[in-house]
Amino acid sequence: MELLKQSIRQMINISDEEMNTFLSFCKRKSFPRKAYLSDSGQSIKEIFFIEKGIIRVLITDIGGTEHTTHFAIEHQYIADYSAFLTQQKSKYQLQAMEDSDTIILTKEAIDWGYKNLQEGEKMGRLIAEFYFIYLDTRIQNSYTLTPKQRYDLMSTIFPNIHNRVPQHMIASYIGVTPVHLSRLKKANRQKL
Amino acid sequence: MELLKQSIRQMINISDEEMNTFLSFCKRKSFPRKAYLSDSGQSIKEIFFIEKGIIRVLITDIGGTEHTTHFAIEHQYIADYSAFLTQQKSKYQLQAMEDSDTIILTKEAIDWGYKNLQEGEKMGRLIAEFYFIYLDTRIQNSYTLTPKQRYDLMSTIFPNIHNRVPQHMIASYIGVTPVHLSRLKKANRQKL
Repeated sequence: MELLKQSIRQMINISDEEMNTFLSFCKRKSFPRKAYLSDSGQSIKEIFFIEKGIIRVLITDIGGTEHTTHFAIEHQYIADYSAFLTQQKSKYQLQAMEDSDTIILTKEAIDWGYKNLQEGEKMGRLIAEFYFIYLDTRIQNSYTLTPKQRYDLMSTIFPNIHNRVPQHMIASYIGVTPVHLSRLKKANRQKL
Repeated sequence: MELLKQSIRQMINISDEEMNTFLSFCKRKSFPRKAYLSDSGQSIKEIFFIEKGIIRVLITDIGGTEHTTHFAIEHQYIADYSAFLTQQKSKYQLQAMEDSDTIILTKEAIDWGYKNLQEGEKMGRLIAEFYFIYLDTRIQNSYTLTPKQRYDLMSTIFPNIHNRVPQHMIASYIGVTPVHLSRLKKANRQKL
């Protein structure tokens, strides 16, 4: 669990004893490619820390069309964090795009952390702020960046993503049609 | 500052002494209708608590079109919270839709709170979580609710909003054209 430990220590000061108790509430879980880590309609009691693999978040609209809203890769956390916080049913699905290894931070672990870790509330604040900034930046970018800029930004944030997930999911994440995405990729290749 | 005190006490336990010191960092400010509370390109060092009035948040896209992304009314907080947290330049504008009275929570107040309030970090966590849930719910609704459902939901969240702000801003917030909004309003009137 070294990677998770490092990630927590980047957020807060935590003693070895605190860390060990916190981690005793966590558990490992692996998911084969295409498996769902969590499903719409479920109660969400888990946050996933990704040790290996790539996860996509999708939502299905009223017309039945799937939209890929997020990706998360190694050393990142992923969850339907709204549903985790509100304990209302999830509307998202989390799907493994490769065989993936995760560490599950249970609701029990998080609640224990808020009560017992010296800086537990700070960790919760930083996680919520991170998620908020991430989401809001996505919204801002949808207005203020061109499709080309959003494509380039995505390639920076998720290196090698084009070899890891199907192109139509990338198009959905950027908010362009698959045909538009092909044109963007072609234009970038011609510049090299 | 009674309303702000109540709002804070709903989030955390706080002594009178802590409250008074915290509020000593805050200040009142009024804005006439159409005035901007904060502008794009600015550094954001203030969160506004609305005592009276209504504020809209807008962003201008690369084509120069304004999009109304949020409203906030009495007893709510509003800010470009991402820019406040990251201290990067704001891309949003906050505009008063009526003569509005606010209490400004300065960055100095918030930073002091994290360090000195017994439950300051918890307050920060709850504010960030609230913002995150609000934003994520907006995104979910754009996929999973019909325009009619989004219209009805907005009327519940912001009672009387139709008499307080121009219709084209409401249409923008819901994500429909002004013509579509007129049809939704007409259909609702005919049901009464």
